[in-house]
Amino acid sequence: MPAYATNMRFKFPILALTLEVIIIILFAVFVVYDDGKSSHGSGHDTSNDTHVDNMVLYPMFQDVHVMIFIGFGFLMTFLKRYGFSSVGINLLLAAFGLQWGLLMQGIWHMDHGKIKVTILKMINADFSTATVLISFGAVLGKTSPVQLLIMTVLEIAIFAANEHLVAESLKANDVGASMIIHAFGAYFGLAVARMLYRPGLRNGHENDGSVYHSDLFAMIGTVFLWMFWPSFNSAIADSGVPQFTAVVNTYFSLAACVLSAYAISSLVEHKGKLDMVHIQNATLAGGVAVGTCADMNIGPFGAMLIGFLAGIISTLGFKFLSPVLAANLGIQDTCGVHNLHGMPGILGGLAGIVAVALGKKEGGDAAMQAAALASSLGFALVGGAVTGFIMKLPVWGQPPDQNCFDDSIYWEVPEEEEENEESLAHGEHSKNKAEA
Amino acid sequence: MPAYATNMRFKFPILALTLEVIIIILFAVFVVYDDGKSSHGSGHDTSNDTHVDNMVLYPMFQDVHVMIFIGFGFLMTFLKRYGFSSVGINLLLAAFGLQWGLLMQGIWHMDHGKIKVTILKMINADFSTATVLISFGAVLGKTSPVQLLIMTVLEIAIFAANEHLVAESLKANDVGASMIIHAFGAYFGLAVARMLYRPGLRNGHENDGSVYHSDLFAMIGTVFLWMFWPSFNSAIADSGVPQFTAVVNTYFSLAACVLSAYAISSLVEHKGKLDMVHIQNATLAGGVAVGTCADMNIGPFGAMLIGFLAGIISTLGFKFLSPVLAANLGIQDTCGVHNLHGMPGILGGLAGIVAVALGKKEGGDAAMQAAALASSLGFALVGGAVTGFIMKLPVWGQPPDQNCFDDSIYWEVPEEEEENEESLAHGEHSKNKAEA
Amino acid sequence: MPAYATNMRFKFPILALTLEVIIIILFAVFVVYDDGKSSHGSGHDTSNDTHVDNMVLYPMFQDVHVMIFIGFGFLMTFLKRYGFSSVGINLLLAAFGLQWGLLMQGIWHMDHGKIKVTILKMINADFSTATVLISFGAVLGKTSPVQLLIMTVLEIAIFAANEHLVAESLKANDVGASMIIHAFGAYFGLAVARMLYRPGLRNGHENDGSVYHSDLFAMIGTVFLWMFWPSFNSAIADSGVPQFTAVVNTYFSLAACVLSAYAISSLVEHKGKLDMVHIQNATLAGGVAVGTCADMNIGPFGAMLIGFLAGIISTLGFKFLSPVLAANLGIQDTCGVHNLHGMPGILGGLAGIVAVALGKKEGGDAAMQAAALASSLGFALVGGAVTGFIMKLPVWGQPPDQNCFDDSIYWEVPEEEEENEESLAHGEHSKNKAEA
Repeated sequence: MPAYATNMRFKFPILALTLEVIIIILFAVFVVYDDGKSSHGSGHDTSNDTHVDNMVLYPMFQDVHVMIFIGFGFLMTFLKRYGFSSVGINLLLAAFGLQWGLLMQGIWHMDHGKIKVTILKMINADFSTATVLISFGAVLGKTSPVQLLIMTVLEIAIFAANEHLVAESLKANDVGASMIIHAFGAYFGLAVARMLYRPGLRNGHENDGSVYHSDLFAMIGTVFLWMFWPSFNSAIADSGVPQFTAVVNTYFSLAACVLSAYAISSLVEHKGKLDMVHIQNATLAGGVAVGTCADMNIGPFGAMLIGFLAGIISTLGFKFLSPVLAANLGIQDTCGVHNLHGMPGILGGLAGIVAVALGKKEGGDAAMQAAALASSLGFALVGGAVTGFIMKLPVWGQPPDQNCFDDSIYWEVPEEEEENEESLAHGEHSKNKAEA
Repeated sequence: MPAYATNMRFKFPILALTLEVIIIILFAVFVVYDDGKSSHGSGHDTSNDTHVDNMVLYPMFQDVHVMIFIGFGFLMTFLKRYGFSSVGINLLLAAFGLQWGLLMQGIWHMDHGKIKVTILKMINADFSTATVLISFGAVLGKTSPVQLLIMTVLEIAIFAANEHLVAESLKANDVGASMIIHAFGAYFGLAVARMLYRPGLRNGHENDGSVYHSDLFAMIGTVFLWMFWPSFNSAIADSGVPQFTAVVNTYFSLAACVLSAYAISSLVEHKGKLDMVHIQNATLAGGVAVGTCADMNIGPFGAMLIGFLAGIISTLGFKFLSPVLAANLGIQDTCGVHNLHGMPGILGGLAGIVAVALGKKEGGDAAMQAAALASSLGFALVGGAVTGFIMKLPVWGQPPDQNCFDDSIYWEVPEEEEENEESLAHGEHSKNKAEA
Repeated sequence: MPAYATNMRFKFPILALTLEVIIIILFAVFVVYDDGKSSHGSGHDTSNDTHVDNMVLYPMFQDVHVMIFIGFGFLMTFLKRYGFSSVGINLLLAAFGLQWGLLMQGIWHMDHGKIKVTILKMINADFSTATVLISFGAVLGKTSPVQLLIMTVLEIAIFAANEHLVAESLKANDVGASMIIHAFGAYFGLAVARMLYRPGLRNGHENDGSVYHSDLFAMIGTVFLWMFWPSFNSAIADSGVPQFTAVVNTYFSLAACVLSAYAISSLVEHKGKLDMVHIQNATLAGGVAVGTCADMNIGPFGAMLIGFLAGIISTLGFKFLSPVLAANLGIQDTCGVHNLHGMPGILGGLAGIVAVALGKKEGGDAAMQAAALASSLGFALVGGAVTGFIMKLPVWGQPPDQNCFDDSIYWEVPEEEEENEESLAHGEHSKNKAEA
C-alpha cells in the first residue's frame, strides 16, 4: 500500500518536539505564577489570601483531572485491539492540550501582558482538552497521532475563541459546559469524521468491536466520569450557593439518567438484554445535559427530569440514529459521541434557555443563551470541517482501512496468548509478533 | 425451561421507569436544596455559612462515592463471566438507591415538610446504598435485575428505620456503621440468600470462580475500598477531633489487618500460598470492624488490635466457615459477605460496647450499644427473610441454575477470542456469539 | 530443586505476625493522637486549631495514598503472569511499611517521649513506603514475600536516617523528594538487584514480558501516578505560595515530559512505533525530576524544561542503558527503576543545586543540596548492598530461576481459559490447575 506512509519515525517526533519547544518558549515569555494581585472577575479570587483560595479548588481540580485522563482514556478502551491508543493517545493529547489550552485561553485574559496561572486556570486548561477528547472519540481508530496533534492545535484555538465569545461577549451561562464543551466537541468531531469518511468501512471492520475484558476496562472510564461529573459541572461555579447547587443538580441528574438508560437499553435490545455500549455511555448523558443549568435554581427534581430525558435520548440515539448517520450521511462516529455529547449537549443548551426564560438564573438572558448555543454549533461545524480538510491531506500518516482500530500500526504490541486467531493476520505485525 | 421467564424486555424497563417516575414526583413534592437555615442536629452545620461548610465535606463525599461505585462494583468482578453484572448492576442499584435512600432517610428528619439536601445527606444516601451492595454480594450471580431492584426498595426502607432507631432513639454510637451498615447488610443478604437457596448449586458451578484478569479487576475494587475507608468511617463524624480520630484509627486498623490477613491466608492454604479471595476481602475487614469505635479514644494501637483480629477472623471464615454455611445451613454466600461484613461487623459492634464501657466515648452507654447491635441484626434477619420471600415469587425472571454466574443471560456479551471453550456451550447464547 | 525451599507456609506467616505484634506493642508504648499542643517545626501546624488544619491536608493525603497503592501497585502489573504479586505484594509492603515508617521517622522527632500522629505524619509514612516500592520494582519477579518484608524493615530504617540527616542536619530542600525518595529508592533497589544477580536470566525469561491486557492494567497505575504527582510534590510543602508553586511546577513538568517521552519513544523504536514500556514509565520522569525544585521560583517554563529533559533521558535509558547495565554490570532491573527514578532523581537533585545557586529558594545553600544528593546516593548504595547481602541468605524462600516472574509459586492462581499454552507447563501448578 504505497499510498499510506504510516511510519511515524520522523513525522511524529519532529512535530511533537517542535510543538513542545514552541510552547516552552511561549511560557517563558508569557506565563507566570499568580501573585494574588490580579483581578480576574471570578468569584473565586475575591479574598486577599489568593493562594489559599486557589488551593480550595484543588480537590475539584483533581476530580476533573481524573475525568480527563482516566475517564476519557479508559472509556475509549472498549475496542478489542485499540486500548493502547485509547488511553495512550488520550494522555498525549490531553498533556499537550492543557499546555496549549492555558495559552489559548490566557491570551484573551492577559494581565499586564502576562498569563497568571491559578488553579482555576488549570481547571479551564483541562476543560479545553475535553473538547479534543470528545472529538477524538468520533474519529477513534481511523487517525494517526500526527493528525490528532494537528486537530488538538486547531480545535483548542477555536474552542477558546468561542468560549470567550460566549462567556464575555454574550455573557451566557454555561457553567457545566453543555454547549461550549460537549456540543462543541461532538459536532467538531462529527464534522472532522465527515471529512475523513471511509467508504471502505461501510460494512464495518472486524476490530470495530469489544471483547469481554475491554468492555470492563471501559467501565473504569465510565464510572470515574459518572462519579466526578458533579465536580466537572461545579468546579468553575461561583463558590457558595451556586457551586453547591451545581453539585446537587448533577448528582441527581446522573442518578435519574442511569435508570432511564438501563430501561431503554433493555427495551430496545434483543430479549430485553442490556447493551454495554449504552451502559458505558448513555448513563453519562445526564451529566452533559444538566451542565448549562447546573448552577440554576431548577430544583433537584428539575435536574432529574433533564437527566431522565437525556438517558432516553442518548440510548435511542445509539440504537437508531448512529446507524443512519453512518449509512446515509457518511458520518462514522466510532464512540457515538453524537449520542453522549452531541444531542445531550443541545438538550442542555435548550434546557438552559428555558430555565433562564423561567427566571431560574439571576441576570440571565434567554436570547443570549440561544446565541451561545448557535455560536457553539457554528464554530464547531465550520471549525471541524476546516480541520478535517487539513487532516485529510495525505501526508500525516493516516492508516489504511484494513489497519483501522488496530494498535499495532502505531504501537509495539506484545504477542498475545491467544495468538492463533485469524484476526491478527494483518500485513502489519509487531516486532514481538514476528518473533512468535 | 418454561418455568424461567428470564426475558427482561418488559418487566425490567417498566419497573425501572416506574420507580424513577415515582421518585421524581416525590422529589418534586418533598426535596429542596438546603438553604442554610435549618438545624440538623449535626456537628457540621453550626456555622452561618452552611454552603461553604457543606462543601468542606465534598472531598470526603467523593471518596465515599468512589467506594460505592468503583469499590463495591469492581470488588465483585472477580467472577470470570459476571463482570458486566457486577459493575453494571452495582451502578444501577446504587444510582437508584441513593435517590430512594435520600427519601427514606429524609422522611425521618423533615423540616417544615421538606427534605433539605446537604452534602451530609448525600453521603448518608450513598451509605444507604452500601447495605444493598453488601447484600448483593451474597446473592451475586443468582438473581435478576428485577429481583435486585425490589430488594433495593425494601432493604433501604428497612435500613432507614433501623438507622433512625439506633441513632435517634437508642442514641448509640456507630460512626463507621459496623452495625447499621455492615452487619445489617450482611445478615440481610444472608437471609435473602437462605430464602433463595438453590440445591442445584450444592456442588458448585463452573462459572462460580475467577480467571487471572478477573482477579486483577477485583483488586481495583479492593484497593480503592481499602484506601478510602478512612473517609467512610469519618465522613459523618463531628468535625475536629472526632473526625481526625476516625481517620487515624481506620488507617491503622486497615494496615494491621493486611498483615494478619496475608499471614493467615498463607498459613491455611496449600503450600503456604496466598489466596486471592482472602486478599481481596479479608484485608478490608479492619475497616469494617473499627467502624463503631472509629471516633473513640481507643488509641492507634487499640485500632490496630481490632484490625489485626478482624483480618484473622475474616480469613478463617472464608476458609472454614463459608463451606459449612453452604453445606449445612443452605446459605450460599457468593462473595463471602459473612466474612467481610458480617463477622467483622459484629466484632465492631462488640468492640464498641467494650470501648463505651471503658469510657472511651463521652456520653456513651454500653447497654444502648448492645441494643443497637441486637436491633441491627434483628431488622436484618427478619427484613431479609421477608424480602427473600418476596424475591422468590416466580415472576421476577430469576435465572435457572445453569445460567447462574453468567452475564449472557441479561447482557449482550461480545464474542470472546477464546470462543472455542466448552464452558460457553450453554443453552443461552448472546446475539454476537450466535454469529460466531 | 532441593536448594529452593519456596514453601511459605510457616516462614511467611510467622514473620508477618511477629512484625505486626512488635509494631502494635511499639505503638502502644510510643504512639498517640496529636493533641494540637506540640510544635513540629512544620508550616502546617501554626494555627491553634490543629485538627482542622490537619484535615486541610486530608485530600492531598488521599491523593498520595492512591499513588502508593493504586499507582505503584498497578504500574507493576505489566508482567503477563505477575499481576497478583505486583498489586498484592505492593499492598502488603505498603501496609506494613506505613506503620514501620511512622515509627522510624517518629523516633527522630519524639515529643515528651511520644510520637504524635498527624495527617502530615501519615503522608510522610506513606512516603517512606514509596522508597520500598521503587526498590521492589528493581527486583520484581525474583524475590519472595519474606525477602521483601526484610527489605522493607531495613530500607525504611535507612531511609529515615538519611531523611533526617538531609532535612534536619543539612537543612537541604527536597520537597518533592527527588533525592531522598526517588534516587534513594532506585539506587537502593539497584544495589539489592546487583547482590541478587541471576546469571540464569541473562538471556531473558519467557514470563518477563507483557500481554495486551496486562499493559492496560499497568496504564491504570501510570495515569493515577501522573495525575496525582502534583499532590506528591506539594503535600508537605509550606502552605500558601510554596504549596501552590509545587502544584503548578509539577503539573507543567509532567505535561512537557509526556511530549518528549512520546517523541523519543517513536524516534528510537522500529518503524517509529510507540513502546508501552516508555509510555508507562518515562511519562512520569517529569514528576520525579521536578521534585527537589518543586516549591522554588523556577517559573512554569523552568519546570517544563526539567520535565522535557527528564522524558528524553528516561526514554533513552530504557532503550539503551538498561540492556547495558544488565549485560555488563549484572544489574537486572525488572521495571527499569533506574530510568524512571534513578536518573531523573539525580537530575532533580542537580536541578535543585542549580536553582538554589541561582537564588530561586530563599535561604537555600547549594553546597548543602549537593551534600544531600551525595548522602542519599551513599546511604542507598551501601544500605542496598548490605540489605541485598542479607536477602541473599538461602533461607528466605527465593524462587528458582525458572519460577521467576510467575505468580503461581506464591499464589493460588485460577485455571486460565487459554490453558493449553505451553507457557504454563511449569513444574509448579496451582491447586486449581491440578483440578483441570
